[in-house]
Amino acid sequence: MDFRSDNIATVAPAVIEAITRANHGTAGSYGGDEISLRLDEKFTRLFGKSVRVFPVASGSVANALALSVMTPSYGVIYAHQGAHVNNEECGAPEFFAGGARLVGLEGEHGKIVPKTLEAALMLSGKGFVHCAQPAALSLTQSTEWGTVYTPAEVAALSESARKGGLAVHMDGARFANAVASLGCAPADITWRAGVDALSFGGTKNGALAVEAIVLFRTELAEDLAFKHKRAGQLMSKMRFFAAQLDSLITDDLWLQLARRANQLARRLSEGLAAFPGASLAAPTEANEVFVTLPRVVIDGLKAAGALFYGWPEPWADSPTIRLVTRHDMADAEVDGFLRLAEKLSRR
Amino acid sequence: MDFRSDNIATVAPAVIEAITRANHGTAGSYGGDEISLRLDEKFTRLFGKSVRVFPVASGSVANALALSVMTPSYGVIYAHQGAHVNNEECGAPEFFAGGARLVGLEGEHGKIVPKTLEAALMLSGKGFVHCAQPAALSLTQSTEWGTVYTPAEVAALSESARKGGLAVHMDGARFANAVASLGCAPADITWRAGVDALSFGGTKNGALAVEAIVLFRTELAEDLAFKHKRAGQLMSKMRFFAAQLDSLITDDLWLQLARRANQLARRLSEGLAAFPGASLAAPTEANEVFVTLPRVVIDGLKAAGALFYGWPEPWADSPTIRLVTRHDMADAEVDGFLRLAEKLSRR
Amino acid sequence: MDFRSDNIATVAPAVIEAITRANHGTAGSYGGDEISLRLDEKFTRLFGKSVRVFPVASGSVANALALSVMTPSYGVIYAHQGAHVNNEECGAPEFFAGGARLVGLEGEHGKIVPKTLEAALMLSGKGFVHCAQPAALSLTQSTEWGTVYTPAEVAALSESARKGGLAVHMDGARFANAVASLGCAPADITWRAGVDALSFGGTKNGALAVEAIVLFRTELAEDLAFKHKRAGQLMSKMRFFAAQLDSLITDDLWLQLARRANQLARRLSEGLAAFPGASLAAPTEANEVFVTLPRVVIDGLKAAGALFYGWPEPWADSPTIRLVTRHDMADAEVDGFLRLAEKLSRR
Amino acid sequence: MDFRSDNIATVAPAVIEAITRANHGTAGSYGGDEISLRLDEKFTRLFGKSVRVFPVASGSVANALALSVMTPSYGVIYAHQGAHVNNEECGAPEFFAGGARLVGLEGEHGKIVPKTLEAALMLSGKGFVHCAQPAALSLTQSTEWGTVYTPAEVAALSESARKGGLAVHMDGARFANAVASLGCAPADITWRAGVDALSFGGTKNGALAVEAIVLFRTELAEDLAFKHKRAGQLMSKMRFFAAQLDSLITDDLWLQLARRANQLARRLSEGLAAFPGASLAAPTEANEVFVTLPRVVIDGLKAAGALFYGWPEPWADSPTIRLVTRHDMADAEVDGFLRLAEKLSRR
Repeated sequence: MDFRSDNIATVAPAVIEAITRANHGTAGSYGGDEISLRLDEKFTRLFGKSVRVFPVASGSVANALALSVMTPSYGVIYAHQGAHVNNEECGAPEFFAGGARLVGLEGEHGKIVPKTLEAALMLSGKGFVHCAQPAALSLTQSTEWGTVYTPAEVAALSESARKGGLAVHMDGARFANAVASLGCAPADITWRAGVDALSFGGTKNGALAVEAIVLFRTELAEDLAFKHKRAGQLMSKMRFFAAQLDSLITDDLWLQLARRANQLARRLSEGLAAFPGASLAAPTEANEVFVTLPRVVIDGLKAAGALFYGWPEPWADSPTIRLVTRHDMADAEVDGFLRLAEKLSRR
Repeated sequence: MDFRSDNIATVAPAVIEAITRANHGTAGSYGGDEISLRLDEKFTRLFGKSVRVFPVASGSVANALALSVMTPSYGVIYAHQGAHVNNEECGAPEFFAGGARLVGLEGEHGKIVPKTLEAALMLSGKGFVHCAQPAALSLTQSTEWGTVYTPAEVAALSESARKGGLAVHMDGARFANAVASLGCAPADITWRAGVDALSFGGTKNGALAVEAIVLFRTELAEDLAFKHKRAGQLMSKMRFFAAQLDSLITDDLWLQLARRANQLARRLSEGLAAFPGASLAAPTEANEVFVTLPRVVIDGLKAAGALFYGWPEPWADSPTIRLVTRHDMADAEVDGFLRLAEKLSRR
Repeated sequence: MDFRSDNIATVAPAVIEAITRANHGTAGSYGGDEISLRLDEKFTRLFGKSVRVFPVASGSVANALALSVMTPSYGVIYAHQGAHVNNEECGAPEFFAGGARLVGLEGEHGKIVPKTLEAALMLSGKGFVHCAQPAALSLTQSTEWGTVYTPAEVAALSESARKGGLAVHMDGARFANAVASLGCAPADITWRAGVDALSFGGTKNGALAVEAIVLFRTELAEDLAFKHKRAGQLMSKMRFFAAQLDSLITDDLWLQLARRANQLARRLSEGLAAFPGASLAAPTEANEVFVTLPRVVIDGLKAAGALFYGWPEPWADSPTIRLVTRHDMADAEVDGFLRLAEKLSRR
Repeated sequence: MDFRSDNIATVAPAVIEAITRANHGTAGSYGGDEISLRLDEKFTRLFGKSVRVFPVASGSVANALALSVMTPSYGVIYAHQGAHVNNEECGAPEFFAGGARLVGLEGEHGKIVPKTLEAALMLSGKGFVHCAQPAALSLTQSTEWGTVYTPAEVAALSESARKGGLAVHMDGARFANAVASLGCAPADITWRAGVDALSFGGTKNGALAVEAIVLFRTELAEDLAFKHKRAGQLMSKMRFFAAQLDSLITDDLWLQLARRANQLARRLSEGLAAFPGASLAAPTEANEVFVTLPRVVIDGLKAAGALFYGWPEPWADSPTIRLVTRHDMADAEVDGFLRLAEKLSRR
């Protein structure tokens, strides 16, 4: 019963197979191989719009590099105050952008609303030379609280951003979970809703280690190409990263894996919510369940060996816990957890 | 009636004389002149402790450079949310520190209290590799709200900082006003109270353009020497900057000038507070008065040509205004303003 | 007949197996898994000295991060003028070090000699505040010209470096080839010879994508831990990177793979050198052959489909070519090339 | 007899007067005063072209800031290998540009010729993602060897730069000496010859401390405005910096001061060249004389109290010395030196 995160998961069999399949003969290095060379085209098809794709090895660097081409070094990047870019990337966005600033915005259940952004922009000193300058908005989809922005919500935020002169970035470490949850086209919550660049997550969704920076504003690609290399992200054996991405977006594997994780989360969420003393701390819309439980239940679960983090993690002794479901999880793992929680709740 | 700031002021005659006096013959450049070479010694006497002094041309760069030797590039600098370093230096601290982060803390009347700092440190992820690391506390003295930290208050904050592994910086753009207000020794609110480095302000207190970074932890000097040069602050004709500092700290000129400004502020504050509908937004402890006035009074003052900013400035249409007094202000300027405000208030 | 590089190679079967073996169950993320947790210990055994190990995904970032903890932001890093850090990392060392400077040194066959370094240090302005400050020496082992520094040569350079106050870094993208070539212990050309930090290459030697920053001065680890995370190199599924390193250093796999590549290079080198009009541009001591050939031979080889680069690559139409051999190369590939070259040479 | 530099000089009386004149009443801060507000217009008239002007306090920061808006963070800046930006600014250009690289070019008497630049560009890897990207050329005028580029020479270099996609910067710490020497219009060696931005020197030519970044490509001004503030160069009492610039360019004061220094240099140069054993190391075209003298003469001059540096300075015991003349130098100082040198030479 391991609900710590989705990055404790295995690599999906199809992804391992893709890596193995790519492992024959010589191949052009640094993205000169055939799989890498077709990524732009394949993602263009996936998004229904001409895009440029840059594979990277981690989510932190995906976000930091994407943002680095959307802000000057004296820029301000707005994000939810609970966002990964704001809290858990050790200042990577600030560093890669040459000294830019993250400003955290409040918002229920991990979601920013337009008026909060607008209020922040009003006080930002836009154009006033004494102030760091509003440059970008970074939205997390699905959010750190397991919720999902609808296409309309993304569009409304993008519009507020646009009025304030901000570029729009989406941290999609769990983008697949959001698309699977919404049942929409990937385009609907990205470029059609005003998003300029996306960190398309792979690692939490069955890959070994790969994320793709997807540029909908392709004119950013020239600058990014150099920053990508300089960040050490132009892998010499790129074929093995490209193969991961390729296998994920082939035959909707990425959505199948995400759907599986989402279903398990829903099942867990519905089960837990019914127990006495339990309440959901946020709606369960993707693959994360945030639930407040009686202390005795939490302690009992831990004593029985269940693994999970309090939230906000990890330095708080919180009555609210985060349970993350994964593509590779057996029904039994969720069911066993529910049975145990029920027993502890009913004591 | 110009209360916009203390940087609209003239240079004090004694400072101009010092510059003129220094202007003869040749002198070693880049701090090799006799006036510059004696600064360390003179400030050591002023503070009663061995210090190292680096003159710079502006307050922004004084703060940013001082902080740059007190934080790693992935560090967090805590400051009051209304602090100049946080709001009005266009990201200079972040830039000079190579990507560090400013975190604004709340606090009444521009002052941080220890428990606010401690609460922030509790949530900071100290030692957790995913988080930018707590590195420094920057206190503004006197504050952006014209208030002054007592020696005991500085000491208490420094102790909290020290427990959390933070170095302590003081932004003393108006340090003279604070010392003059408290009637204490400069040491009492700096190194004796746990401060590691001070931006000793000159420009707002009668200089042409000079601030001194004063290092109480002299082991920081080697690193700072290079960063100071690299920032373009090792002036070739340094004698003219050193002469300004020298004249200010000779025969307590800096305190005389500050006392004059403080007295005018007190007079203004007491006068305004007595008028109907007026209330002080913060105690007047240095050379700035923050007062909330009826809109009709504010409009009337402006119509009569009085100059001042709403606060928080400058992009708000605030019923609270900031009035800054200066060393070179005539009594009549304050008195005229008071008479006018009274007349408008009594209508 | 593909001699373009060793990064066009496949992943060694044992490495793929190690990845597959690691792919079961859940595992602590961000290095909290069992394989990652034992890396320090295993590399400590390999080097006969307590070390700290940080896996990363590419050679560029290994070098840049290692150097970033060995130089201040105003530091100077000395390297051979033909070094990868100097020419082919798009300014990564400068960026990660916050603005440091690379200075290229001359030296026959890709190797620096102490007197060249000492001459550069003599002119460096050490301690003079106007000059960027000498901070580190980066040696490439094996070098960009396929040569190898002996233990005595490394030690002599380290001594010169130490006298000049420089830390010593080794870019070991082809470290295995050097150790295999010398038949020495890994310690002999690293910490015993004065090296402070090593980029231990995996990718060019049979890994999918992994290098290890090995710190012999373990006190650098605290700073590096944060910079490593901030660079996006603390992979969430770190087990799959650790597994690659683990498999390479188990049962001397890394040396077997390197020996194979080295043998092929020697065979190629000896063969080519015997042909009329051919001359080696550098001794063949690792897995790269640099040979000057008649234009007609080069053209003939290309026409027959052989792949390789002119050197210095890739923007020169050079009569000297670089031939890189790999762990996964068949004898036939080398023999076929030699036969063809011989035929063309004898025409 | 003090020939150490032109930054050991006094402030010209007219400049002091301008400062004093500006020192009355209140004035808008941060460039909001009347003198600052008219600088763009006055420099526009001086250069015969619409320009934007940013006053700064030192030459190092003028160069670094100007270059920071002409190069991406992964850019390469070409300069003469003896250039101040390359050697004596402690890495300021690298820092302000976020990690860019300086590449030093050879050239007789401190001057680069087009074919040297072109050869460097040929090997630069332009457009190749693995290489730091050619971005700017920085020319020093007059040069570190006291020579002057003619308008045709600047134009030829700019054309080579332009073909290679480089922006062109001029380090004009001694721009006045060059213009005075050439007798041309300031435009002739700047925008008309392809220069995009100029560091217009004041400090070495009679100011207290001021240089102006003059942008001929005014579209760079928006970016520079923020970087200028963030560098701590938007002085709060800007009127005193603007007044210095204003007085220098009024009634050709800057050229008069430079002509005086140039004349003295010519006199010194002609005198010294005639002595036995003496030879000029570079033509004397501005206010610096580089002369190789017998050791006995150099020692004798020093023994008599004459002050000067060997060149390249300061860490070499060079038989070539640099003698810098100044606007505030008496004829007697030069004549006395010549008499002494002659006496020593004839022994």
